[in-house]
Amino acid sequence: MSDYQETIFDRIIAGEIPCHKVYEDEQVFAFLDIGPLSEGHTLVLPREKKAFLHELSEEAAAGLGRALPKLCRAVKEATGAEAYNVLVNSGESAGQVVMHVHLHIIPKFPDTGFKMGWNAGKLDDERAERLVGRIRSNITES
Amino acid sequence: MSDYQETIFDRIIAGEIPCHKVYEDEQVFAFLDIGPLSEGHTLVLPREKKAFLHELSEEAAAGLGRALPKLCRAVKEATGAEAYNVLVNSGESAGQVVMHVHLHIIPKFPDTGFKMGWNAGKLDDERAERLVGRIRSNITES
Repeated sequence: MSDYQETIFDRIIAGEIPCHKVYEDEQVFAFLDIGPLSEGHTLVLPREKKAFLHELSEEAAAGLGRALPKLCRAVKEATGAEAYNVLVNSGESAGQVVMHVHLHIIPKFPDTGFKMGWNAGKLDDERAERLVGRIRSNITES
Repeated sequence: MSDYQETIFDRIIAGEIPCHKVYEDEQVFAFLDIGPLSEGHTLVLPREKKAFLHELSEEAAAGLGRALPKLCRAVKEATGAEAYNVLVNSGESAGQVVMHVHLHIIPKFPDTGFKMGWNAGKLDDERAERLVGRIRSNITES
């Protein structure tokens, strides 16, 4: 987006603000969250300067995906967590605070980690088919 | 993993169980969640048969990442949601129910969507450096 505004994460990636860096490659930069939900809570960012996941180029998004398994393995091994959640909050009302795409890896322990409410509804078939039609017709290359 | 057990999702991908399919490509298969947290709640799966995100090959994980921006755009456009959460629950204690990697795209609306508790702690610098050392030393190619 042309209206991207620099965030604190861009200054961290640029080395202007210190962080506890975990990993970097050509596409990705990862460091510990300073407000962790649990031991090992890690932020994984594309270097690409986009506010929202749906704005990322396919190349940047593929790079983000590619780095994930090894980062999840490393966080898991390093913390001894058996489980973890991976989360992207996209948009203010979904909990996004810093407007540079970032993905949380949050190890799950008995007393710490990510807590969620899961208030599942039921999918109505007819409604679902209309919705699927709308989603499919909106799938466009970037 | 050699101990992968077929899940209901493998039967959906194989076409043995019907679903409301949204998208598929060589790496990825996506359909509506039958227990939606909100209108447009979509599951995105790698075709690769792995239970957990940390087990995925880099190729499968890159394919999953690559498909995400266009799927998020399409779900957003089709539902009119301004925000959304993307979530992977990895491991039973993190809320994973079906043991084939899957990613949730959950549109956020005023009354529906993903609800989370965010009980942030504070990162201690010394502890963080030790942790970063452990994570870095555990980053290994698959």
